[in-house]
Amino acid sequence: MSTGKFITIEGGEGVGKSSNHRFIAEFLSAQGLEVIETREPGGTPLAEEIRELLLTKRSEVMSPTAELLLMFAARAQHLEQVIKPALQRGAWVLCDRFTDATYAYQGVARGLGTDFIIELEQSVQGSLRPDLVVLLDLDPRIGMARAQNRGETDRIEQENIEFFDRVRSGYLARAAANPERFLIVDASVELEGVQEQIASGLTKVLGCASA
Amino acid sequence: MSTGKFITIEGGEGVGKSSNHRFIAEFLSAQGLEVIETREPGGTPLAEEIRELLLTKRSEVMSPTAELLLMFAARAQHLEQVIKPALQRGAWVLCDRFTDATYAYQGVARGLGTDFIIELEQSVQGSLRPDLVVLLDLDPRIGMARAQNRGETDRIEQENIEFFDRVRSGYLARAAANPERFLIVDASVELEGVQEQIASGLTKVLGCASA
Repeated sequence: MSTGKFITIEGGEGVGKSSNHRFIAEFLSAQGLEVIETREPGGTPLAEEIRELLLTKRSEVMSPTAELLLMFAARAQHLEQVIKPALQRGAWVLCDRFTDATYAYQGVARGLGTDFIIELEQSVQGSLRPDLVVLLDLDPRIGMARAQNRGETDRIEQENIEFFDRVRSGYLARAAANPERFLIVDASVELEGVQEQIASGLTKVLGCASA
Repeated sequence: MSTGKFITIEGGEGVGKSSNHRFIAEFLSAQGLEVIETREPGGTPLAEEIRELLLTKRSEVMSPTAELLLMFAARAQHLEQVIKPALQRGAWVLCDRFTDATYAYQGVARGLGTDFIIELEQSVQGSLRPDLVVLLDLDPRIGMARAQNRGETDRIEQENIEFFDRVRSGYLARAAANPERFLIVDASVELEGVQEQIASGLTKVLGCASA
């Protein structure tokens, strides 16, 4: 039995991850695939508790290194409990954010650099990398306006626009360095146009999976 | 102004860390030193929340790698908020468990090995290491009996005796590899005899500090 594929959805705040997550899940299910939908940080009860620690606003300033290590602690748990077993039994895993987010948010936007993240990625994931990264790319000025319409912001969403400019450039640098697995989607157009771009990328991965 | 010294207290369950912690704190305070008493995992509100995650019993099995990363997340926060500022202003820091515990518990007893811990130690601590490690050494059969008298056990204390045998051998291996900073204390004798051993070790460090 072949293993499943691992698809991640990436992007800053308000880029439309949720609605496009649903679109991708339905698209893959319609092909008869078993799809596991999950998210990071989170995806298991313990990892969701770590997410709470990460997103709760607090008076104590969280050290960027502590933030980075909490992200990878949640990831280690999620990989062992959910992602790896699912892929091994042939299911496809669709995950809202993964390690490329860590490179963009903690590596670039928080300024931690990539050396330590590369070490953590290697130790925690071994050779596991997403087969396809759907990067929803959008000017953060538009994204933040959309996100603020959703209501109260969490600890990370409350950062300023310069932070999210760095997140976006961090993501685009990841995509430039890993073109074989990144699908950059222009998320500024109408939802239908976004979904056409995604469907075309998915069809390519499906073609490879059935080849 | 010279920086303070960093003293850690290590050992398995029921070796007498609490009473000897108090003894060391009083011994140092009597020399006119400012002593910051703290513990790991913990030592800041956020790091104490991480401690709760680590010690709460749960049906979900915690991945050893997640456990290791939570330990270092708490440590990064503790170092930045408490330990480094205290040492820099010349205070002495007395900490109940630190990275040698990670080598013994996660590295040896959980079987993760040392490579990843060495990387984490380097990235999170830089060159900071304890000036003195007071290792309270005791047969875990005696220690566990004492610990059980204290009441309910936490997630880590509920491990079996073979686990704590590995913790002990992990600690002794750390001491053998780092003799210049470890004080191995025979914790099987009466409290007074334990404290005599500790006082002699502290006097040596105090001599170096004032030299």
